[in-house]
Amino acid sequence: MSATHFQLDPQGRLLHFLTIEGLTRRHLTDILDTAESLHGVAERRVKKLPTLHGKTVVNLFFEASTRTRTTFELAAKRLSADVLTLNIATSSAVKGETLLDTLRNIEAMQCDMFVVRHEQSGAAEFIARHVKPHIAVLNAGDGRHAHPTQAMLDVFTIRRHKPDFSRLQVAIVGDILHSRVARSLIHALNILGAGEIRVVGPRTLLPAQVETLGARVFYDPAQGLRDVDVVVMLRLQKERMEGALLPSEQEFFQRYGLTEERLALAKPDVLVMHPGPINRGVEIDSRVADGPRSVILEQVTNGIAVRMAIMSITLGNHARPAGETP
Amino acid sequence: MSATHFQLDPQGRLLHFLTIEGLTRRHLTDILDTAESLHGVAERRVKKLPTLHGKTVVNLFFEASTRTRTTFELAAKRLSADVLTLNIATSSAVKGETLLDTLRNIEAMQCDMFVVRHEQSGAAEFIARHVKPHIAVLNAGDGRHAHPTQAMLDVFTIRRHKPDFSRLQVAIVGDILHSRVARSLIHALNILGAGEIRVVGPRTLLPAQVETLGARVFYDPAQGLRDVDVVVMLRLQKERMEGALLPSEQEFFQRYGLTEERLALAKPDVLVMHPGPINRGVEIDSRVADGPRSVILEQVTNGIAVRMAIMSITLGNHARPAGETP
Amino acid sequence: MSATHFQLDPQGRLLHFLTIEGLTRRHLTDILDTAESLHGVAERRVKKLPTLHGKTVVNLFFEASTRTRTTFELAAKRLSADVLTLNIATSSAVKGETLLDTLRNIEAMQCDMFVVRHEQSGAAEFIARHVKPHIAVLNAGDGRHAHPTQAMLDVFTIRRHKPDFSRLQVAIVGDILHSRVARSLIHALNILGAGEIRVVGPRTLLPAQVETLGARVFYDPAQGLRDVDVVVMLRLQKERMEGALLPSEQEFFQRYGLTEERLALAKPDVLVMHPGPINRGVEIDSRVADGPRSVILEQVTNGIAVRMAIMSITLGNHARPAGETP
Repeated sequence: MSATHFQLDPQGRLLHFLTIEGLTRRHLTDILDTAESLHGVAERRVKKLPTLHGKTVVNLFFEASTRTRTTFELAAKRLSADVLTLNIATSSAVKGETLLDTLRNIEAMQCDMFVVRHEQSGAAEFIARHVKPHIAVLNAGDGRHAHPTQAMLDVFTIRRHKPDFSRLQVAIVGDILHSRVARSLIHALNILGAGEIRVVGPRTLLPAQVETLGARVFYDPAQGLRDVDVVVMLRLQKERMEGALLPSEQEFFQRYGLTEERLALAKPDVLVMHPGPINRGVEIDSRVADGPRSVILEQVTNGIAVRMAIMSITLGNHARPAGETP
Repeated sequence: MSATHFQLDPQGRLLHFLTIEGLTRRHLTDILDTAESLHGVAERRVKKLPTLHGKTVVNLFFEASTRTRTTFELAAKRLSADVLTLNIATSSAVKGETLLDTLRNIEAMQCDMFVVRHEQSGAAEFIARHVKPHIAVLNAGDGRHAHPTQAMLDVFTIRRHKPDFSRLQVAIVGDILHSRVARSLIHALNILGAGEIRVVGPRTLLPAQVETLGARVFYDPAQGLRDVDVVVMLRLQKERMEGALLPSEQEFFQRYGLTEERLALAKPDVLVMHPGPINRGVEIDSRVADGPRSVILEQVTNGIAVRMAIMSITLGNHARPAGETP
Repeated sequence: MSATHFQLDPQGRLLHFLTIEGLTRRHLTDILDTAESLHGVAERRVKKLPTLHGKTVVNLFFEASTRTRTTFELAAKRLSADVLTLNIATSSAVKGETLLDTLRNIEAMQCDMFVVRHEQSGAAEFIARHVKPHIAVLNAGDGRHAHPTQAMLDVFTIRRHKPDFSRLQVAIVGDILHSRVARSLIHALNILGAGEIRVVGPRTLLPAQVETLGARVFYDPAQGLRDVDVVVMLRLQKERMEGALLPSEQEFFQRYGLTEERLALAKPDVLVMHPGPINRGVEIDSRVADGPRSVILEQVTNGIAVRMAIMSITLGNHARPAGETP
């Protein structure tokens, strides 16, 4: 059974959130609708709901990420959960414990949810397969494979501005090869029936056979950005680049960086998105990042509502005996 | 006044939890009974009790221990306390403050409980002697001296399976010399009237005059494990070993490691225990650690209930004026 | 508009707490009165108020400070806020994000308050000027500039013992030049109408034109301490000293250290204060630090009530639309 099915119970309900692949439009729409109803919570005077009161959420971060960890922590706290953050790289590794023993021990502490960030593809799925059935596992980014909560906050942000996906043209620009964000986003857009998905970048930063994911390939941004509704700029993953795939950051900016001139090729009401943190002057010009078409900070805000939604849904499905209707 | 009496008030009630020595069977039974009633909390939908709402528990860890720190943190949070974790080695030491000044400052912040882990024997007692009387101090492991909450979760785990201690034969195997776990456990088992306590290990890893603690010494596991009800394997404390007390880990495993063959010498319903983290293939074979007689992960689960019990009891005794009946 | 006015709304109410300069006696008295009412909370069985339930307080510490961070964290938790601590130096700096981008991201997570500690003067004000208007910014120490919550807890501590400021003589002794504590305290004492403020120290550790702040200068402690009501000893900021302003710590203690002999020059009911952590035998003798006139640990306790008061007031003023009367 592949990860795509493993994350669902026999009734097809989400038990974990490991990857977008294999989910239905209904799954994604449920998450988006729940996130929409939770979005207002942060505007209220008391930004908390009792949904996860008495539950324990464990952040298992094998790879540093202040931003992602923080949004998951806030999402859990706003649902009234207790949150435990374990930086695994620096803790039990000292005593030479294996990953599985560490997991077994944490699950024995009767936690309810693991949020997993790992530099290796498949790590979250591996953990989901080995923890006890009452624990929900959320993938907060695994290697080059997937970053499904980021993809969901991206489509949530798009939907709030442009609810009709059928006519949507989305360009994803930059280092597609190393980007788990891109892979997850392409899947989500396809499932939601987006009109056209384009990937734009130099040949060296596009994965082989990227078309099979359901995306059109453009090497030239002058063509790839023409008339699009959304531009998603990817971060140049300097820390992930092995070997010299690119001559220099400067050259990348010159050929692919999102400037006002290039942005003018897109629709006038184009949305500019970026998963952050941005490299100003590398993949995006500051005037665009801070300009009127940018929704980059909205993405951050939306990330909390979307993560609250995914936490509520997966733990809710764990609480209900299989077969019971909600 | 020694630590054994210092942790009690004039009525003999627990104010701190520093060492098992000097406690009565009544003290231990109270903790075990309270832990039993709290054990069910983690099974409930809402895993929280309001017992310590508004109290502040400070984890003072002078020595790294993710596992122990985490279980104390969870225990405190499940009792609704606020938890503050201070890694002392890396903080005020920078500014050259003395330990006592650090303590005085934290107690001035009106905290209610200190959970202390320190590499020096007697550190928790030293702290208990110097803090203000309203603060309860729990020893989470001090040097080679004591690890009394671990001993309590061990006897709690045994009692859940084998409630009659009078006929119990328990073998503690391995590095007794460096083990605070072993010292505390021997005391607890004696107080609870265990039938026979055996320590099993090479001469170099047994403390001089260990018999005076009330344990029978075996150098040969073939004899030490015969017909026992419980085997407690100790972690080979590689990081504590000074000098060459042992030829190699391999030789240790060959002579003392718990294999299925050796385990067959014990009673058929023997319990296999280990304080964790385990060294697979050093003190225990994986087939035994993961086998049907192992209760190693139950120990972790039980550790939370036992720590919740000790927190409730000691803080409860602080709240009541001396002499008042509960 | 300078920081002194920037922290107030058009009605003159506190929106941020960046500096004591420019505040009125009314502002300070409001804080002190609120702190007085909160001071009793820590004595209660349940040390919590629901004031900030559902609010998120972010500790942005660009400079390590366990003590200050801890008191802010406790203050926020005792007001039932969720607290997030970000050690900026070690997190997003890794990915090369600019300070402003980090801020924008955290504010997009819909936090309500930033507590800022930074080694550069003006950092807290810079942040307050750039965050969204719904966020309150508290200065927890910026460079040599200000440490206004420390000044407030100092005057709070004085007022509890000596409520009539008009006749008060206060000596601030030591390294005035590098001390943000001294600068903030001098302002607070002046605003509250203290009788006389003295600064006492070697010429090399007094700022040029310190008299313009409203303080009398003494190079000789024998004169500076005579008949004072309060002595505030400053910490010798070894880590801030650039160049050889002082021959040695020993010489400093000999010439300025607070000994019982020197203290005898002051009023019999003098208060001995110190912002901590103290350097025993450098700026203060242990017999004085631990003696009957010392209120150093009271300062720590009071710091929590004062910070709770400032958090409540600033967030309360954010919640009320400008122009609305409380």
